Amino acid sequence: MKYCSECGALLQLRLLAGDGRERSVCPSCDAVRYENPKVLVSTVVYHGDSLLLCRRAEKPSIGKWNLPSGFLEQSETLEMAAARETIEETGVRVSSEDLQLYTVTSLSKLSEVYICFRAAVESDRCIAGPESLEARFFLESDLPWTDLAFPEMYGFLRLFFRELQKGDFGIHLSRVDDLGRFRRKYQLASAV
Amino acid sequence: MKYCSECGALLQLRLLAGDGRERSVCPSCDAVRYENPKVLVSTVVYHGDSLLLCRRAEKPSIGKWNLPSGFLEQSETLEMAAARETIEETGVRVSSEDLQLYTVTSLSKLSEVYICFRAAVESDRCIAGPESLEARFFLESDLPWTDLAFPEMYGFLRLFFRELQKGDFGIHLSRVDDLGRFRRKYQLASAV
Repeated sequence: MKYCSECGALLQLRLLAGDGRERSVCPSCDAVRYENPKVLVSTVVYHGDSLLLCRRAEKPSIGKWNLPSGFLEQSETLEMAAARETIEETGVRVSSEDLQLYTVTSLSKLSEVYICFRAAVESDRCIAGPESLEARFFLESDLPWTDLAFPEMYGFLRLFFRELQKGDFGIHLSRVDDLGRFRRKYQLASAV
Repeated sequence: MKYCSECGALLQLRLLAGDGRERSVCPSCDAVRYENPKVLVSTVVYHGDSLLLCRRAEKPSIGKWNLPSGFLEQSETLEMAAARETIEETGVRVSSEDLQLYTVTSLSKLSEVYICFRAAVESDRCIAGPESLEARFFLESDLPWTDLAFPEMYGFLRLFFRELQKGDFGIHLSRVDDLGRFRRKYQLASAV
């Protein structure tokens, strides 16, 4: 971030009183211009024992399989974003009410937060949208495990199938920071 | 957002192929400049039956009581941000390990996502930081209920005390969008 997004002036790095890090300040607007971490949402949609994946038509990882996912936009709730990405990429409609909180993850290096929901659907009909080459439901045994878009999906999807099989979904809090990788499962009192 | 943050050129609104909304595109960099929703973190820190609040030294709601809270910064996990705001505003040290996921909330109108953690601490020592006029632990009966920084805190803090009393913390998912206000409690299998 080099220029003020409101007036186009060159930003200056300044250490402000009572603040621990340098900030980008616009000398013309006299305002601090913050950079916000990004929020990514994804949805684990399942029909019986099968999980919905879509094959990416865009960079990165073109041609690889992914969960329906994307960035949270302005004026959206997390659930609206998850439902939007799901229908855009796979043609499957889930409503905000269908979506159950599943994982909350932060990656400090990428300045990204991931919120994943899960939703059971009654039909396995799906159709690839413009950002996908293909959309399909997979049994665990048929899933393209060696063709996933991002390596960290492997462990996560195995975990999902374990929980699906047991009917024992938790809520997972995880993070990757300088201290390494951390995951905590909150066991729910009853199946949701 | 009117100017490109990387080159300072005037942005143009364009409808891109396969995209449902107009985007700010830089004609010079040929890149889309997205605006990201903001992530706010807060911490419910309690000692026995008492809750930690701090009195705001800054706008908005100067002089009113709030939970330790603030925006997630670049290169932070949610837990790092919650711990940083807590020590900055109240002098109370909580580690990432102490922090339990408590609420996940989105407000579509403000383009904001709130993540709240809770943490039990063994001492009620605290000291106001530069962004606070005062920091204190309050019993529910002593809490400055009519002097809270934001009206929506009222119901949330009453809920917290109810759960604290019962030793029955859940994880709460909530949102406010065009359809109104929605809240779901995930009951945990065991006290955390």
